[in-house]
Amino acid sequence: MKLTGKSIIGFREGAAGSEDFHATNPKTGERLPQDFFSASPQEIDTAVNLAHEAFAIYSRISGREKAVFLRAIATNIEAIANEIIELAEAETALPKARLQGEVGRTCGQLRLFAQVVEEGSWTTPRIDRADPDRKPAPKPDIRSMLRSLGPVVVFGASNFPLAFSVAGGDTASALAAGNPVIFKAHPAHPGTSELVGQALRDAVRECNLPKGVFSLLFDRGNEVGTALLKHPLVKAAAFTGSRLAGKILMGIAAGRPEPIPFYAEMSSVNPVFILPEALRHHAETIASGLHISFTLGAGQFCTKPGMVFLPEGEDASSFLTQLQKSVGGSSPFHLLTGAIQSSYRSGLVARKAKKSLRLLAENQHSDPGQSVGAALFETDAHSLLKDPELAEEIFGPATLLVRHSDRNELLEAARSLEGHLTATIHGTEQDLDDFSDLIAILERKVGRLVLNGFPTGVEVSHAMVHGGPYPATSDGRSTSVGSQAIFRFARPVCYQGFPNAALPEELKDDNPSNVWRMVDGEMTREPISRTQK
Amino acid sequence: MKLTGKSIIGFREGAAGSEDFHATNPKTGERLPQDFFSASPQEIDTAVNLAHEAFAIYSRISGREKAVFLRAIATNIEAIANEIIELAEAETALPKARLQGEVGRTCGQLRLFAQVVEEGSWTTPRIDRADPDRKPAPKPDIRSMLRSLGPVVVFGASNFPLAFSVAGGDTASALAAGNPVIFKAHPAHPGTSELVGQALRDAVRECNLPKGVFSLLFDRGNEVGTALLKHPLVKAAAFTGSRLAGKILMGIAAGRPEPIPFYAEMSSVNPVFILPEALRHHAETIASGLHISFTLGAGQFCTKPGMVFLPEGEDASSFLTQLQKSVGGSSPFHLLTGAIQSSYRSGLVARKAKKSLRLLAENQHSDPGQSVGAALFETDAHSLLKDPELAEEIFGPATLLVRHSDRNELLEAARSLEGHLTATIHGTEQDLDDFSDLIAILERKVGRLVLNGFPTGVEVSHAMVHGGPYPATSDGRSTSVGSQAIFRFARPVCYQGFPNAALPEELKDDNPSNVWRMVDGEMTREPISRTQK
Repeated sequence: MKLTGKSIIGFREGAAGSEDFHATNPKTGERLPQDFFSASPQEIDTAVNLAHEAFAIYSRISGREKAVFLRAIATNIEAIANEIIELAEAETALPKARLQGEVGRTCGQLRLFAQVVEEGSWTTPRIDRADPDRKPAPKPDIRSMLRSLGPVVVFGASNFPLAFSVAGGDTASALAAGNPVIFKAHPAHPGTSELVGQALRDAVRECNLPKGVFSLLFDRGNEVGTALLKHPLVKAAAFTGSRLAGKILMGIAAGRPEPIPFYAEMSSVNPVFILPEALRHHAETIASGLHISFTLGAGQFCTKPGMVFLPEGEDASSFLTQLQKSVGGSSPFHLLTGAIQSSYRSGLVARKAKKSLRLLAENQHSDPGQSVGAALFETDAHSLLKDPELAEEIFGPATLLVRHSDRNELLEAARSLEGHLTATIHGTEQDLDDFSDLIAILERKVGRLVLNGFPTGVEVSHAMVHGGPYPATSDGRSTSVGSQAIFRFARPVCYQGFPNAALPEELKDDNPSNVWRMVDGEMTREPISRTQK
Repeated sequence: MKLTGKSIIGFREGAAGSEDFHATNPKTGERLPQDFFSASPQEIDTAVNLAHEAFAIYSRISGREKAVFLRAIATNIEAIANEIIELAEAETALPKARLQGEVGRTCGQLRLFAQVVEEGSWTTPRIDRADPDRKPAPKPDIRSMLRSLGPVVVFGASNFPLAFSVAGGDTASALAAGNPVIFKAHPAHPGTSELVGQALRDAVRECNLPKGVFSLLFDRGNEVGTALLKHPLVKAAAFTGSRLAGKILMGIAAGRPEPIPFYAEMSSVNPVFILPEALRHHAETIASGLHISFTLGAGQFCTKPGMVFLPEGEDASSFLTQLQKSVGGSSPFHLLTGAIQSSYRSGLVARKAKKSLRLLAENQHSDPGQSVGAALFETDAHSLLKDPELAEEIFGPATLLVRHSDRNELLEAARSLEGHLTATIHGTEQDLDDFSDLIAILERKVGRLVLNGFPTGVEVSHAMVHGGPYPATSDGRSTSVGSQAIFRFARPVCYQGFPNAALPEELKDDNPSNVWRMVDGEMTREPISRTQK
């Protein structure tokens, strides 16, 4: 594959505009050679119109055909995996092993959605059969299932240049549900984006799908994304990024003449609760796991544990000793972009200036230009309740220990939490009995509760929920990871009094696609007769 | 039951405030005797705080317990049905038979949701079992299911004083999902609201549920509703009413410091398409059914067919003759409120003044003070496309015929439609073959497609979708009628690494509630072992 630096608009290249930009190698600070060009307003409009045209066809192809397409994307990505990984390493400073894992995760995601749409029950078909003899009025035949929404805009995330970028979870789930995607590439890894975009575009072509099923637009700032979100033919959008940007985009989506579903996964501090018995018996294991978790990917995961509650007193000493040692001795980290670097650095400066915080450990290193060190702070629950700033996310390898003097203080702190993606509890059986009310409080605050584990490492599976109440996401009823992510890009449509011939396959009497359906209130895969028994 | 005119705040009566109001008999214009009192800001706050407290308990009771509660509400309503119907007739001018039907529908809805939550599979449990041997990292045990949101505000609708009011579909589905409800009564039928509210409150008490599970607040204007929607402890809201009010409330819900899900069912013209063969062969049946449908409930249904597309030419003549005759000869209608009356009258005046419209028939009657007549207008597709005002809803017994000269004009008109609750097609098998692209267009515009029937008469069933893209509703991914309405008030929560004892019943290994679950991607009701086979 050859980089062009130009947007991919259906099967065409965008023109080279005047606004160009470059990726930077975060390890060296060097500018990478390839020129990239922001999409023009005309190109944005063309991409959306192509998507709108493609929707008429793409929304009606079968699950089997969509599965072939999703698998073709995975195959095409794997064919150029080495090239992608090499460029992604230069653009993101993420280590090769991590990027290899991310290629695997991305292709695994595509294949999971292929499996889901091939099987077809995700469309949630429901059939209430007619009863012509019902009094006072005959009961009509009523059937419903999920249908796709229309063109979906996906914003690439900086921290997952593959799994939450061009062919990542948002794109995969939107395509799986039957929606064309217009992808706004993240300017920090444009080359990686283009390579994956070419692989995706080629899959569209190989599967004889309409060209508008996928476009990729470059933008060095935020004008392209804003224009896409405002476009009247766009019917939904997904975003992963900062709370600031997410909130601005939420306002745009809600303020359109036709408001549209907008799924932003914005920010989360992912509180961890270490309960007394667990601290007493497993201090070192927890400390070691916590250190790995909050520094994984240089602390640039949305599920990084950024706040750790533990009791005051002697039992914490071996935990603290080990954690301080690990943090002090850790290697320097390279962050994804210059902006993230300076924001991390200023975050540390601000925390160090807080009287209510103590710096317990910091990794000092000799390369202050391009790398940063891990940091460990401590405060108490009382200070946290008084100063909500302490609960804000610092994107990077830092975390905050919050000591509490008793059970009530802990529960009060838990009740004061805003919405997060995850909450983690370390506890023995005894602890869980003693703190069952803590679980009840946290259930209302997060999308995922983790017991005796760590929140990083989000499984891509059927039961995963990577979501959570605002402000963790814009819509706490959804997940952006796992097969349930597909439900974000569909809505139910009901067919009353339709003959078999005019119904979608999933709703036909004889159930040719063998999907699970709710028939007169009961789950079944059996074919049905037209009227009730 | 005795009317007090005071809000119901948990188990207490609201105080009699200074702001009082009265219901009016729409048939006579007479003011009804009972004084009603708007809730005070303090009472609003108390009701929401009680709901918040109740949530901790109510969100965790079993589906069986919720079913007992929902059935108790139905029983209590039926016990005072005659009293309710008598008062509702005076407050709404709806005929007794309709109100009797609406009591049945309301209680049927409550029992449908009782059945759904008793069975329990609506919680959509999913289990991905652990695989400790997976490389490179062990796979954790991950389970998820739907949980309730928190206190829900429901706004009563004027046009269904029972089925979309105090114990109507929104309340029933919010309670079924496990959320306390704070109900804002519609000022047009406050007495009916209070009677049903007392029945509901008594059910809360009989079932030993916390008092905050239900409150009912009166308001003569819109201050109480606005304050409720802004209250930080409120987590979702549902509304049925005008587009104007719906859009204002949407803005409030989206503009909160913590935006919340807001389900507004706002306005819909419910286009009907009469295709050529159907017109040729079934003109009289369709004309008669259409007349019944658009004048049913005095044309005050959200699914009233307000726009009817039919071809120009001779084939329409018997259809037109019969429809004109039916409209001209119909009885006068009493509308629900003075405001609806004057809005209907001014709507007719505005339409009569339009050069592009022809008045084909109007019922003239002798009681212009309190009643109105049905009206039938005609225009052509070209004029409709030029003047979108013609496509706006007139709430009351009027409809608009839109003649088109050919297939392309019809498809263009269909493409230009905004979101509606329903679209109806009258067509023979031949018509459906000839117009399959019309069905494809309409699928994207509405929540429900009706074939050879009429959109009024919304079945309360499992497959029903009473929703549709904006501006028909604020959230086209939802339905406000039928058992799928419960999904509006829930969100998925995921449990990772939890032992059986700490999991909700629906997720325990042995599946004690015998619900359908997705286990490792397969639907089953079988108990499971902890690890994969």
